[in-house]
Amino acid sequence: MGTAIRSVQWKDGKFRIIDQTELPLELVYRDLGTAEEVREAIKKLRVRGAPAIGIAGAFGLYLGVRNYPGDDYEGFVAQAEKVADYLATSRPTAVNLFWALERMKKLVRESAEMPVAKIKNRMLAEAQRMIEEDIAVCRAIGEVGSVLIADGYGILTHCNTGSLATGRWGTALGVIYVAAEQGKRIHVYSDETRPLLQGSRLTTWELMQAGIPVTQIADDMAATVMAQGKVDIVLVGADRVAANGDFANKIGTLGVAILAKEFGIPFFVAAPLSSIDMSLPSGEGIPIEERPPDEVRTCFGKPIAPPDVDVYNPAFDVTPYRYVTGIITEKGIAHPPYEITLAKLVEG
Amino acid sequence: MGTAIRSVQWKDGKFRIIDQTELPLELVYRDLGTAEEVREAIKKLRVRGAPAIGIAGAFGLYLGVRNYPGDDYEGFVAQAEKVADYLATSRPTAVNLFWALERMKKLVRESAEMPVAKIKNRMLAEAQRMIEEDIAVCRAIGEVGSVLIADGYGILTHCNTGSLATGRWGTALGVIYVAAEQGKRIHVYSDETRPLLQGSRLTTWELMQAGIPVTQIADDMAATVMAQGKVDIVLVGADRVAANGDFANKIGTLGVAILAKEFGIPFFVAAPLSSIDMSLPSGEGIPIEERPPDEVRTCFGKPIAPPDVDVYNPAFDVTPYRYVTGIITEKGIAHPPYEITLAKLVEG
Repeated sequence: MGTAIRSVQWKDGKFRIIDQTELPLELVYRDLGTAEEVREAIKKLRVRGAPAIGIAGAFGLYLGVRNYPGDDYEGFVAQAEKVADYLATSRPTAVNLFWALERMKKLVRESAEMPVAKIKNRMLAEAQRMIEEDIAVCRAIGEVGSVLIADGYGILTHCNTGSLATGRWGTALGVIYVAAEQGKRIHVYSDETRPLLQGSRLTTWELMQAGIPVTQIADDMAATVMAQGKVDIVLVGADRVAANGDFANKIGTLGVAILAKEFGIPFFVAAPLSSIDMSLPSGEGIPIEERPPDEVRTCFGKPIAPPDVDVYNPAFDVTPYRYVTGIITEKGIAHPPYEITLAKLVEG
Repeated sequence: MGTAIRSVQWKDGKFRIIDQTELPLELVYRDLGTAEEVREAIKKLRVRGAPAIGIAGAFGLYLGVRNYPGDDYEGFVAQAEKVADYLATSRPTAVNLFWALERMKKLVRESAEMPVAKIKNRMLAEAQRMIEEDIAVCRAIGEVGSVLIADGYGILTHCNTGSLATGRWGTALGVIYVAAEQGKRIHVYSDETRPLLQGSRLTTWELMQAGIPVTQIADDMAATVMAQGKVDIVLVGADRVAANGDFANKIGTLGVAILAKEFGIPFFVAAPLSSIDMSLPSGEGIPIEERPPDEVRTCFGKPIAPPDVDVYNPAFDVTPYRYVTGIITEKGIAHPPYEITLAKLVEG
């Protein structure tokens, strides 16, 4: 039980990812050797999921300065800042990316006395540490959240928050993996998550790999499985959580949250503390990425609508805190009022 | 403005349909000459939409007895009953199919004194009359419902309820066509309607043909466009309406209804009186068709999930009356309590 898939790792001097745009038809690894390749991989969603994007950003920054020829600290810092800015424009919503880049820049700033070669080594070690930390954090999220899962539970999830989105365990799926490890018989309903199908392509795939029972549904079937009493809890991830508990997550999360409320089903968000942005008082300030219209006009590359139709394609939505039963972090579960409980966890 | 598309018609001794499984990539007509071909077309959704299925059933029944060789009334009736039973098994949810078959069988029963050849002619004329009646009924639904649409309205719809689902105008889209004809500036948000994409493939296509502004969204974006204040009214069709106002419609309708309630957006059902089944006290008695799992594992033929994943694929859901602001029929708009208002319209 559980999964050993590593979707992001450092291997033979390159940042190796599973190319998630190819799943579930093919399992393709890509070895990224430059900041440009990492940025492209983030932008095209070859690597995705808030924690994995943060890790990719850290390795991208290292790769972008690895070949810096000089030995002068000032020039090196300038290069690092430039690469960080460049990587930061790949996707605007996930706070983990900015968090990871900031952490790497801070390391560089704190290493001003060291030779450039040593700073490079420290950066690589820091990026590798981020993977290990993510694995530990997600494991903790899974263990914390697993108390919410009873034997026999039906669990609905949206998008992908598992091994493919993180270093190993995942956030919402981390809870599911740990609950399954504990011997609880669970059944997952996986929203396919249009337009990019992270549910049917990724979540379903990795749950099947791990031997956890999963039923695939189209997004517009969620209300019906809830109405039929098949869902005991909803678990989703988050790309950014505001101080009041509002959170941004994959488009479609808001709808699922409203349905859960209507049917009296607990709705939990699983997210590392690094996803919580205490500088944002509410979700209104979260920028929402709009992605290319052809993602909606097509389905996994297949045209499904008139090619010139007008499209609205927000990649995320913001779910107000009032729909959120609790927020599962590596340090505990926050309940309303989130201004207080999240602040305690973040500071704690 | 408006549309002249005829998705079902009698032409040169055959029942001609637009094959909706090919849209929007190709506009293909198919000429059906036997009951078997009609049944296959209904089952495979080449012809779909409650009113169009009813019409197809009527023509299918005619085609199934057209070549009856004998002149004996008893044998002819037996053949008609047999073909009707055969056609009735094509799709279980749409009441219009049973209504149309029953109407044809009644005609046969009432023609016992006539020669078989004459009964055949009467049956063809009756099926043709059903198209004309549908056009008139949908036009009336459109005119009745158009009072609900104000200039500048954003309208969200799910599935396809337009020219492609009916004789010409459509039910929910009939309201939209008439409102547009009246010079109201409207904007339609079209849910793509997974798994079979009747929204993106059909509704969007026919609205663009008619020059009505439409924006394509994935189903899981409906909550967000509502939250952004872009939707002033939701209009959907119905495959079967129970006496209390519960109704079955394309999977995903229930979710849209709940979202509309949450955002305080009026939610109207547009349906001919022939869709109202006063023999059913509530929606609990409506049988829900489950369709093949590969519809969810694929998207317009393209594999998008592990090929062996477990799937739940109900073709319809049942929306309780408490989410329904009103039901638009050709004779007027029913408001709660539906037991009384629907009964009046049906009897009236």
